[in-house]
Amino acid sequence: MSEPTIHPVILCGGSGTRLWPRSRKAKPKPFLPLVGDRTLFEATLDRWLDEDHFAEPVIVAGSAHIEHIAEQAGEDATVIVEPAAKNTAPAIGLAAALLPKDSIMLVCPSDHHIADSASFTAAARAAAKLAAEDWMVAFGIAPDRPETGYGYIRTGEKIEGGNRVDRFVEKPDRATAERFLAEGGHAWNGGIFAFRAGAFMDELEQHRPAMAEAVRKAVAGGRYEGQQFHPAAEPFADISGESVDYAVMENTTRAAVVPADMGWSDIGNWEALRDARPGDEAGNRTSGQVELVECRNVLVETDGPRVSVIGLDDVIVVVDGDEVLVTSAAGAQLVGKLSGAANQ
Amino acid sequence: MSEPTIHPVILCGGSGTRLWPRSRKAKPKPFLPLVGDRTLFEATLDRWLDEDHFAEPVIVAGSAHIEHIAEQAGEDATVIVEPAAKNTAPAIGLAAALLPKDSIMLVCPSDHHIADSASFTAAARAAAKLAAEDWMVAFGIAPDRPETGYGYIRTGEKIEGGNRVDRFVEKPDRATAERFLAEGGHAWNGGIFAFRAGAFMDELEQHRPAMAEAVRKAVAGGRYEGQQFHPAAEPFADISGESVDYAVMENTTRAAVVPADMGWSDIGNWEALRDARPGDEAGNRTSGQVELVECRNVLVETDGPRVSVIGLDDVIVVVDGDEVLVTSAAGAQLVGKLSGAANQ
Repeated sequence: MSEPTIHPVILCGGSGTRLWPRSRKAKPKPFLPLVGDRTLFEATLDRWLDEDHFAEPVIVAGSAHIEHIAEQAGEDATVIVEPAAKNTAPAIGLAAALLPKDSIMLVCPSDHHIADSASFTAAARAAAKLAAEDWMVAFGIAPDRPETGYGYIRTGEKIEGGNRVDRFVEKPDRATAERFLAEGGHAWNGGIFAFRAGAFMDELEQHRPAMAEAVRKAVAGGRYEGQQFHPAAEPFADISGESVDYAVMENTTRAAVVPADMGWSDIGNWEALRDARPGDEAGNRTSGQVELVECRNVLVETDGPRVSVIGLDDVIVVVDGDEVLVTSAAGAQLVGKLSGAANQ
Repeated sequence: MSEPTIHPVILCGGSGTRLWPRSRKAKPKPFLPLVGDRTLFEATLDRWLDEDHFAEPVIVAGSAHIEHIAEQAGEDATVIVEPAAKNTAPAIGLAAALLPKDSIMLVCPSDHHIADSASFTAAARAAAKLAAEDWMVAFGIAPDRPETGYGYIRTGEKIEGGNRVDRFVEKPDRATAERFLAEGGHAWNGGIFAFRAGAFMDELEQHRPAMAEAVRKAVAGGRYEGQQFHPAAEPFADISGESVDYAVMENTTRAAVVPADMGWSDIGNWEALRDARPGDEAGNRTSGQVELVECRNVLVETDGPRVSVIGLDDVIVVVDGDEVLVTSAAGAQLVGKLSGAANQ
């Protein structure tokens, strides 16, 4: 079988409130240069530049993001403008219903970091082959720590090019995560999937028929404005928001997983962002005018005022305009609950 | 013997670089409201309001401080303007040479915090009685922790109204400080002294004759401008700067100490300032727009931007204009070495 062309589908959904105050409602996480000089969204686009394997990407985004997308992807990018934010299953459904049935979709968040592009491409090609055989394919990220912030995939029997999924596991507690790491056979669910468009719609029809119908109607009643596709709002309005994990992956009998060891991070909070950036010999990361004395493993960034830090380990300091955040690395997961982050 | 009137002599000397960035060269530590609504200098003046015991204070200060003094003490305050900064012995000498010989001087820094004014007044009256008998009297602050940042006074034999000083001890290491605290018989040297003006000049003459002569000449050649006294600059220029501890207290045979348990702090760094302020039930102190989550014993103050802090203990965060300081409480002693503090 010849190798299928892959249609990247980029989901621009997350608000990134846990990266407040750098990530703000007006300019959220995907559109910021958080690791290196390229924004996470730009770096995501860069992964598809290999025309031997990848078609032009399709971007699924809310109207609030359109301006940033045009600025960073160009006016000619193909964008499906979600009539409402309904989580990942309907968003992927819109792309699946719009693309030709035999298109192989590779669904990727717009705001993850992947250090090793070659490994990503290799995993994408493996996933695409399985998707062409109508497997619903998840990337299984090789875990390197007992992370409690991600869902896990327990791998099942070997199949040609990957494994069946034995089951999806919700975010575990620490002890369970440590057991997974010790036992092996568990991978992180990174939210990256491959589907044949028609097969995805068939599965959605089977497990969430109302959602599938609404998505089809929204696409059938939609219209193009240049390269922007606007699905009809009315049928989409009645859909319950649901993740692709719940709506499809946990219900299908054809869930598969391909291994991916590619320096992946969801940059889900400031601690993860710190870890995704290269540090100096003391593990410190700084950006802007910063002086450190007797610090280890700190991340300090400022867009203006000088920041001087003394005697701290594993602390994150962020100065952004009229907001200053100081958090322990462990406390970074609580940032989204701060009133500054919650009341934007 | 009737109780002597006390002439307060306030030394405005310190630069307060360890309280950077709040304390800046342009507006240093004494002139800031660091504890409560009054500045440390204003609070120092407030201690002398009891006219039964205290005469109008004499302030000894460098020319850089005159404007702040006029603003906070009024234009009518008596100020001796130091021709050059020469440490405490010459500064006290200027006041001693200017005041009538039988004046009882109570020498106080302008930038300390004293929570218990009544105990201060009581100690001042006890010290004044001893000074009237030509003792060189130091306040011995009751220690409540094994502090390594202060000099200590080892108390000697009991005399009427106090004790002889057995010896002055330089800043000890931690083990020595712990031993002092366990043994008793040691007090902190808080830099507060009482002298009869003439007796002080006699001691200075005996132990530092060149300094005494220069001070006398500077006063003899000085001139008043309103309430400001400007000693002659030339004789003062040749003096070696030296503390009153080295020049007089460690050499005199008549050093005495009066006990003082009065909630004293030299507010010597951010940790000391934190401890001098009342905290909430978690030991946190905040000023300005601050949100804390899971913090204990933090001091957070900001003059503008909101500061959000998560998951930290014993950390100090100060936002002042174009500078942000974040330090562990233990690291606070290093603040003066930061390039922001050192290169003002």
